[in-house]
This record gives sequence, C-alpha cells and structure tokens, in this order.
Amino acid sequence: MSYRILITNDDGMAAPGLRALVEVAKQLGEVIVVAPDSPQSGQGHAITISEPLRLYPVDVFEGVEAYECSGTPVDCVKLAKHVVLINRKVDLCVSGINHGSNASINIIYSGTLSAAMEASLEGITSIGFSLLDYSWDADFRPAQHYVRQIMEYVLQNGLSKCQLINVNIPRLPLEGIRGVRVCRQADARWKENFVEATDPRGQKYYWLTGEFVNDDLEEDTDIWALGNGYVSVVPSGHDLTNYKAIPAMKKLEEITLPQKI
Amino acid sequence: MSYRILITNDDGMAAPGLRALVEVAKQLGEVIVVAPDSPQSGQGHAITISEPLRLYPVDVFEGVEAYECSGTPVDCVKLAKHVVLINRKVDLCVSGINHGSNASINIIYSGTLSAAMEASLEGITSIGFSLLDYSWDADFRPAQHYVRQIMEYVLQNGLSKCQLINVNIPRLPLEGIRGVRVCRQADARWKENFVEATDPRGQKYYWLTGEFVNDDLEEDTDIWALGNGYVSVVPSGHDLTNYKAIPAMKKLEEITLPQKI
Repeated sequence: MSYRILITNDDGMAAPGLRALVEVAKQLGEVIVVAPDSPQSGQGHAITISEPLRLYPVDVFEGVEAYECSGTPVDCVKLAKHVVLINRKVDLCVSGINHGSNASINIIYSGTLSAAMEASLEGITSIGFSLLDYSWDADFRPAQHYVRQIMEYVLQNGLSKCQLINVNIPRLPLEGIRGVRVCRQADARWKENFVEATDPRGQKYYWLTGEFVNDDLEEDTDIWALGNGYVSVVPSGHDLTNYKAIPAMKKLEEITLPQKI
Repeated sequence: MSYRILITNDDGMAAPGLRALVEVAKQLGEVIVVAPDSPQSGQGHAITISEPLRLYPVDVFEGVEAYECSGTPVDCVKLAKHVVLINRKVDLCVSGINHGSNASINIIYSGTLSAAMEASLEGITSIGFSLLDYSWDADFRPAQHYVRQIMEYVLQNGLSKCQLINVNIPRLPLEGIRGVRVCRQADARWKENFVEATDPRGQKYYWLTGEFVNDDLEEDTDIWALGNGYVSVVPSGHDLTNYKAIPAMKKLEEITLPQKI
C-alpha cells in the first residue's frame, strides 16, 4: 500500500531540515509539501485573517508536488487541506525537521508544532520533528534514521488515542543516541530578557533574548530523555483544561451570583 | 491593600473591550496597560524574534500608565514584565475583554488568551475575558459585572493549583445571565474553507473563512454553559501532554531501536 504524506515546516521552503524530511518521506509514499515562503519561527498557532493568502506551485524537490504559501505554518496546513488536497486523503502530516529544540514549553511557541497540531485538529495524524541543533548546516542524518522508523510505525499502527506526537532528537552521532523514550512535556520555561538599543533616529527599541530554565527534574520528561541521549516522543493534544484545578474552583460558581451588584 | 493589575488584549489599544476592562480594574487597584498598536486577532502564541520591538507611552485612559507595543499580545506581556514592570510586582494580569468568543479550541488561536497564558508562564495569575459579541460597539456592561466579581475573587483568593482561567461571557442582558459555571474546554473545532478570488494583476488569492462545529455535547463544557446562559470559566494551563496516550505508545520505545538500519 502506498501512503500519501503532507509535509510542512516553519523554517521555510529552503530549510535543510525540510529537505531531510522530504528525503525520508519519499521512501515511504507520495509526498506533498506546503511550506511558508519565509521563515516563521515563533509564530505559534498564528493564523492570517486580515489579509489574503498566496499559494504558488514550486519545483524544489525532484518528483515532489510542492507549494509555497505566504502565511504562517498553520495557514499552510489549512490551505493544504482545503485547497491543495481537496478530495485527496492524507495518511500522515509531518512538520519539520525543525532547526532547534521544540521540547517542553517550546511546543507553545513553535510554528512547527502548531502546524502539526492544526493537522491533527483537521483529523490528520501528525508528527512534529525537531533536531536540537539551531545551525543551518546541522547534520540531519542521525535524525533521519529515527524519523524514518517513527514515521513507518505511525503509518502502520496509527497513534491510537492520540493524533499528535512531538518528537525531539538530540544532537548526537547515530551511535550516541540510546533509543526512544515516550515522555511527558517538562514543566520548564524561558527566563527572558530584552536587549535595549537606540536606532539611528534616536528611538529606543527592544530585542527579545532569553535562557531556557528547567526546574522539572523528574525522569519521565522530554528534557530528561534528551539530556540522557534519547529521542523524546511526547503524545500531545489541544486540550488546555487544567482538570485538577476544577474542584477547588467550583467555589467561584457560588460567589459570582447573578445580579448581585 | 491595593493591588497592581496588568492589562493587555489582542484587539489593540483603541478597542472598546479594553476600555471596559480598564474601567473595572481601576476600581480594584493600580492599573498598567501594555497593548498592541494594531489588531492582533488570531496571533495565537506568536512572538517576535526576527525584528526589534517598539514600546511607546500613551495617554489613553485617565490616570492610567499605558504603553503601545509594536508586537504581538505575547510580546506585550514579555515587555510588560521585563521592561515596564521591572522591580514592580503584579498581582494579576487580565487580557481582553475580547470582542468575540474564545471558548473551546479558540483558546489556541486567540491572542487574548495567549497573552494571559504567557503571563501565567511568567508566574503571574492571569485571566482572559471574552464577550460573545464580535461587533465593535458591543455592550460590555453586563460583562463588566461578572468581570469585576471574578477579578475580586481571584485577587483575594488566587487560583490555588492553577494560574490561568479562560472566561467567556454570553451576549445577554445582565438579567438574562444565569451565573457562572466552571467547565472543561469543549472538544469542538472549526470547519474551514477558503474563498478563492483573483487580484487586479490576475493572481489568485485565498481568504480564510469557516464555521464553528461542536460535536462535544456533554454538559460539563464551556460551550454548553454559554449556550445555556452561563458565564464559562475554564481553568487552563500550558501542558499539552496527552497523558492517556502514553501507555499505548510505549511500544514505540521497543520498535525504534538504536542503529537498526
């Protein structure tokens, strides 16, 4: 059986990580790429609602149908589903391979993972892949080994009660990677700051900078897995409800009575 | 005791919903506003990393320290915390009042809620407020009644095991609102489509459109509460892990062995 695979990313059509992912996917089925026409890192789940979107066919990967889109990664997936792939079923959406980590809280800021989440919301089983190497000339070959195995597993078995996984791969040679760990998202955060400077017209501006801090030291997290040489796989979703907090908060129903002004 | 309250939104500094929120907050403490200088609906958790950010003091609300920011709602919160409020403690961050629903899955796309979530990540107890009325001249007075009661409760009691709530208010006169319900996020979705058109240069473009569809008909959801005349309160967070899916997925650890090429 031949599979149909949708690929997108947030680093744009020219990113080496996208090429690395297309190379693997081509071995597993028919590939369609819809990727942003400019880098979209940090776009999160942004969508374009106040402007029209453009979609251009491009010839970038040999034998692969590909389109550049003027919008965000989430826009790419929506256009892929509703314009490019109309009446064509997709077996899997893969996003990446991102240049840099999307472990832990980064899933919230990441265009790569938001694109995969959007596909899962559209009913397509999805995987976000990221390599812990921000450099443009990162070596994606060790990552490709795991990307292929995970894609094959998911194509053959699905993800049962889940439609989205967040996969991060450590920056190690193939023989240094110890295998795969299925984890939860570590409760880490960015400790941020701004560089303040003055432009040539004398106006102040600010540039975001920051440092990733993890105080969540349990051994069942993605950060632990990556720090110990494993590929991390986090089953993810789109339900942000904090269920544990519901019982204590029920008090709010009594206190906020109608028309008690 | 006097409280210090940070306010932001995604509809921009001129939005009537922001003014309605400032009016309530001024009755409860010292208010600082950091809001986008242009509408940012649908920006999700986008952050600006490839461009500098601007921050200008503005005199919009009487007796209120206010700043316009050139970035996204999440940028506003980061700049508020690390530049505007440096060395000043904030007791609460409120975002909104959004013009339109942020119930269910809309929390993922919403700049309003992403701003509140960012504040919660920064350790500030946060509330996102939305009124189910997209019109610019919506009547925020019934909403203000509940906004005030909920803010007072949270300022006095905190949110115990939670740092973020998503509050949606039905478009009803005050006497038509039946009270508050603490809920989970409904598993609804957008059924989307694109309007295709041709620009004056003969190039195609696409414009996102869509319809909100809810097949999650349980009575413990925000959509149910709103449809039945209640204000919905969903305790939320930033952990996207799908815990139920972890056990079945452990198989992946065995299948993807190191170096099995």
